Amino acid sequence: MRAAVMRGKRLVVDNISTPVPGAGEALVKTLACGICGSDLHTLKHAQKLVEASRKHGAPFVMDLTRDVVMGHEFCAEVVDYGPQTQKRLKPGTRVCAMPVLIKAGGVEAVGYSNDNPGGYGELMRLTEFLLLEVPNGLSTERAALTEPMAVGYHAVQKARMAKDDAPLVIGCGPVGLAVIAALTLGGVHPIVAADFSPRRRELAQQMGADFVVDPKEKSPYESWRQMATYSDPAKAPMLPPWMPGPALRPAVIFECVGVPGVIESIMSAAPGNARIVVVGVCIERDQIEPLAGISKELNIQFVLGYSPEEFAATLSHLAEGRVNGDPMITGKVGVEGVAKAFEDLASPETHAKILVEPWHS
Amino acid sequence: MRAAVMRGKRLVVDNISTPVPGAGEALVKTLACGICGSDLHTLKHAQKLVEASRKHGAPFVMDLTRDVVMGHEFCAEVVDYGPQTQKRLKPGTRVCAMPVLIKAGGVEAVGYSNDNPGGYGELMRLTEFLLLEVPNGLSTERAALTEPMAVGYHAVQKARMAKDDAPLVIGCGPVGLAVIAALTLGGVHPIVAADFSPRRRELAQQMGADFVVDPKEKSPYESWRQMATYSDPAKAPMLPPWMPGPALRPAVIFECVGVPGVIESIMSAAPGNARIVVVGVCIERDQIEPLAGISKELNIQFVLGYSPEEFAATLSHLAEGRVNGDPMITGKVGVEGVAKAFEDLASPETHAKILVEPWHS
Repeated sequence: MRAAVMRGKRLVVDNISTPVPGAGEALVKTLACGICGSDLHTLKHAQKLVEASRKHGAPFVMDLTRDVVMGHEFCAEVVDYGPQTQKRLKPGTRVCAMPVLIKAGGVEAVGYSNDNPGGYGELMRLTEFLLLEVPNGLSTERAALTEPMAVGYHAVQKARMAKDDAPLVIGCGPVGLAVIAALTLGGVHPIVAADFSPRRRELAQQMGADFVVDPKEKSPYESWRQMATYSDPAKAPMLPPWMPGPALRPAVIFECVGVPGVIESIMSAAPGNARIVVVGVCIERDQIEPLAGISKELNIQFVLGYSPEEFAATLSHLAEGRVNGDPMITGKVGVEGVAKAFEDLASPETHAKILVEPWHS
Repeated sequence: MRAAVMRGKRLVVDNISTPVPGAGEALVKTLACGICGSDLHTLKHAQKLVEASRKHGAPFVMDLTRDVVMGHEFCAEVVDYGPQTQKRLKPGTRVCAMPVLIKAGGVEAVGYSNDNPGGYGELMRLTEFLLLEVPNGLSTERAALTEPMAVGYHAVQKARMAKDDAPLVIGCGPVGLAVIAALTLGGVHPIVAADFSPRRRELAQQMGADFVVDPKEKSPYESWRQMATYSDPAKAPMLPPWMPGPALRPAVIFECVGVPGVIESIMSAAPGNARIVVVGVCIERDQIEPLAGISKELNIQFVLGYSPEEFAATLSHLAEGRVNGDPMITGKVGVEGVAKAFEDLASPETHAKILVEPWHS
């Protein structure tokens, strides 16, 4: 089959062996697969990712001397089944699935693996019982957003937003945009979001942010503070007499950047009692000042992925039009275009999410 | 009055001017004041503490070219009152209080301040409405433990322990011991505690730890894992079929050391979904690996101090014998003995808590 293959530190197009579905597995045809920021990181820092994964038990362990076909944000079509399958969904059915294979020995990643090619190739093997039929009418492009949107949904679920919480989203790449979409689902407002890129701030507004900030112009924390101050002081909770300043709604800050220094800068600028949800995936070692956390009693919740229930709920939300991911999709390429798309995505001005359609050129 | 004074980087005994109670303030006589690990840190790293406090809005800002009388874990006796006071408690009444002065301009620290001498001196000024009478019969020594025990109580309150949570206490200095005492109050067992010092492990057991570990001999996390595995698998929560290993009770790990590297080592060794409560106060910059937190969805809650309600509750717990701090008290000195006591406390083998009795020599 044709695929965009990570070979060494490069992406090349090649014909590789067609996957053969094993016990409990379906063979599917990739209809569309989003390019994820983590894939860009991986191409650049694969060695670091593998080392850190090995150390911390993360499921991203690959042999980098062998080929890897990445791609884990897909909508696909059932082609065939392996042995010991129920063949519940007919060939031709469009499906989404969590990008993992469930095997007797444990869970294996699809896309970050030498043996389980992901959606940058024409065909994939997927665990049958994880397949979710795309509900009637949802377009393939929108269905392919299930995975990245589920990441945002999970992050917001883990944040356990209360009605009075006031969110601040730092970084409006695809992860930040997915968090914004998930926040709109819960009806929590105002949603304040910050990004240096005008294009991404525009996308953030299209996805549901109520107020966007350019950190070069104004501190996002200052903007948040203005939005999160109770306009009617009578509605604010009673403050102890010795606490100066106006009562603020509780801050929930989503870290959606994932590069060294961001957690520290958020801890330094966060208001007291803030909860910080780390959604960005920083592969490198990082520094913090514990006293910033201590003096403000900050809470940091690291998150990863989503549960099967959250993944399925996200597909429903998209199908029912409760969230709209359309503004995120800024381009489409065939396998030949993947390497160039990776380069294009490095600049935030043009693209947010590029879909790979392996059967198109 | 006589006091042990921090002057430059040394502790000296000197006669300094007697405090004069201001509006809303009482003048009290220090009966006993515990030496806190933070005071040891402060003597060594005062400049760092002041810089970090200034940066992060912590209330430990002092002019280090001027005298400071430290000491914030005290039991005292009412002597007199300043203007605009209610004189609710008669002179001679024994009291405890949070070590802060509430003023029109905000909160000021008692003990970490140039102007508000703490309990290493014979007399202090305290805010009248914060004074809590020592309940009938509680000894002065025990009452002086209210402040450090309140730190542990607050940490456990912030951890929101559920019935099934299995705690692990890293470090059995006074902070770790106070956490252990607070855990026994909630009836959460088993309490696993780790310290390199045999003496501190012994104290941990006296304070209520069910199982103590020497990290040189065995990994505290391995010991915790054995204790936290459901002995009756039928009582364990259902695990998804792809999760290997036995079901573990949720981990709540208390960081009670406060030196660089400890948060990182806990993050690295913690089981999935662990909550880490940072009670130790690390003044220096520190490193973490975000991927350790991300891959295990860890939660880090930084804590500081206690609320007025928690402080009052702790005094009640001591007075009612619900917690016993006696094993912690390992020595007493007059003001002349403070400098030597600071040196002695650097070694964990002999002492846990030394009380200063400024009126005794």
